Amino acid sequence: MVRISVDVMGGDFGPKVAIPGAAKALERHPDIRFVLFGNAAECEPLLAQHPKLKAASTFHHCDVAVAMDEKPSQALRRGRGKSSMWQAIDAVAKNEADVAVSAGNTGALMAMSKFCLRMMANIERPAIAGIWPTLKGESIVLDIGATIGADANQLFDFALMGGAMARALFGIDKPTLGLLNVGVEEIKGQEEVKAAGQLIREANFDTIDYYGFVEGDDIGRGTVDVVVTEGFAGNIALKAAEGTARQIAEYLRAAMSRTWMAKLGYILAKSAFDRVREKMDPRKVNGGVFLGLNGIVIKSHGGTDAEGFAAAVDVGYDMARNGLKDKIERDLQKYHAGRPVEGAAQGMSDEV
Amino acid sequence: MVRISVDVMGGDFGPKVAIPGAAKALERHPDIRFVLFGNAAECEPLLAQHPKLKAASTFHHCDVAVAMDEKPSQALRRGRGKSSMWQAIDAVAKNEADVAVSAGNTGALMAMSKFCLRMMANIERPAIAGIWPTLKGESIVLDIGATIGADANQLFDFALMGGAMARALFGIDKPTLGLLNVGVEEIKGQEEVKAAGQLIREANFDTIDYYGFVEGDDIGRGTVDVVVTEGFAGNIALKAAEGTARQIAEYLRAAMSRTWMAKLGYILAKSAFDRVREKMDPRKVNGGVFLGLNGIVIKSHGGTDAEGFAAAVDVGYDMARNGLKDKIERDLQKYHAGRPVEGAAQGMSDEV
Repeated sequence: MVRISVDVMGGDFGPKVAIPGAAKALERHPDIRFVLFGNAAECEPLLAQHPKLKAASTFHHCDVAVAMDEKPSQALRRGRGKSSMWQAIDAVAKNEADVAVSAGNTGALMAMSKFCLRMMANIERPAIAGIWPTLKGESIVLDIGATIGADANQLFDFALMGGAMARALFGIDKPTLGLLNVGVEEIKGQEEVKAAGQLIREANFDTIDYYGFVEGDDIGRGTVDVVVTEGFAGNIALKAAEGTARQIAEYLRAAMSRTWMAKLGYILAKSAFDRVREKMDPRKVNGGVFLGLNGIVIKSHGGTDAEGFAAAVDVGYDMARNGLKDKIERDLQKYHAGRPVEGAAQGMSDEV
Repeated sequence: MVRISVDVMGGDFGPKVAIPGAAKALERHPDIRFVLFGNAAECEPLLAQHPKLKAASTFHHCDVAVAMDEKPSQALRRGRGKSSMWQAIDAVAKNEADVAVSAGNTGALMAMSKFCLRMMANIERPAIAGIWPTLKGESIVLDIGATIGADANQLFDFALMGGAMARALFGIDKPTLGLLNVGVEEIKGQEEVKAAGQLIREANFDTIDYYGFVEGDDIGRGTVDVVVTEGFAGNIALKAAEGTARQIAEYLRAAMSRTWMAKLGYILAKSAFDRVREKMDPRKVNGGVFLGLNGIVIKSHGGTDAEGFAAAVDVGYDMARNGLKDKIERDLQKYHAGRPVEGAAQGMSDEV
């Protein structure tokens, strides 16, 4: 059994997406038990439409829902203790759930997660790990936007946690891992990245196959299972890739509707187009994993549909089922011991 | 007349691409006069095949060619004064050419350019500006990899130079300009980026319509004419976008050859596919512009073909014809005066 708490009110569509999404995930994983947090008046009619989900869930009414545009500090003030987001995370803190899932606003979710769950011992900063579709399958990229900048030790921690996540998600013993860098000759790379590469090499992980530096185009190529970078570059890489995918889809759509022949060709090749669309479907790789906290929190895209939300629940399920937290803790004990720990568990005061 | 010096030996294919490329550009712009630098034995037979180009060129034999994998410091030692790359740049320094074009290695080209041409007064750091295809046409993105990191003043300079380049390239009086940032709530953006936004707003350019922050997916959307960022994030954004475009092309190729129907559909829609391919064709937007130097240098992709090389020459032609340097100097005088200049023209010693 995997216990998953859900902030049903999060996201652009709240219960309308979260409830059918959870129901879909339950069909795939009948051993999930849900702990749902949301507004009873809004949720109950929807839950009534999904009797299997209802039977597998406990529901808790919450008066407050964090808004999508609320600032983290404001969300904390208004939603602390009371909001569906807070309570979903708190269920993990109280060991009433193994993982929390929310489509709510990222800033508030991260702030509350840090507050409720606290940083893992010896980890200074959280990271958000995303799953990126590649030519070889999928890769993990972190940090895609938890914090800006990272020193060598923090990048080392990201590598350790990203490696553990790859083992939990892909079921491989020794995932390959690369540090994102620029390959242009005259700039021999960021100092922090070079130093992090040194630390990772010296640690000689039995759980990570360190590849070295990778460049932006190596991500989509699937050169490594895990790509490590700091949050500014990671977020920009992700958004640039998403923007390019949308751009090409738009070009294709326009081109295919221009002539009679192209339209006919499109109809004949529709299954092929669908195949490509499915490969690039952002819903299929939905679910950013918050790493570095004493508990697993999954962030779903705010604007996704039930299919996408179900994918985020799936990620949470895999992370809990395959012991992500234990894997990180094992590596932390084994590989972190040797290196001096500065400012660990400094909490969130300087971040929000 | 526009005088263009060419490092004929640069790039993966040297004269085999540069000479037919220059010939193509000459067809489009008969007022170009070329100054060609290369190995006579290799170049002369090729030049003989392009009599029009030969008639419009002066050719200078050079013993040394900078290798594609040479380190900048090594290239400087070996190629200073003698190499085709050095001489092509030096022709601009001596006012024997208006712009230099090379497909040689970026690091060496930047190092030699800084050495030969020196930084413009009041500009601390060079930038490489790339042309990015967007849903609305084209945008300029800088820096895509000249240097790592940039403080607020340097980002301000990039904005000033990028704005001038947009006026020269797109022929618009007041291009829109955005600073690349991350929009995730909990991280309110990089400090340097915020400070640069403040500086740009306060300068109140009559030549730039400052939009504010943009995110990675705004680049392909064409939200602004000019996107300003530091070289690490810029390079990673560029490579991530290129990787995604290649990835989708690969998916499409595989999907379209899977079934009989898809193959037929592909044939019928071929003109539409060609249209999309052309829109995303990296050869069409070839030509990174080195900004911040006392002279214009254009970097062509090393692996491009004659069409791509001709596009790089076209960019150089536009930059010279439309007075890029004058435009930058005008804005520097008008908008830079008010702000204290630190470490200006510090040269290259700390970079190479």
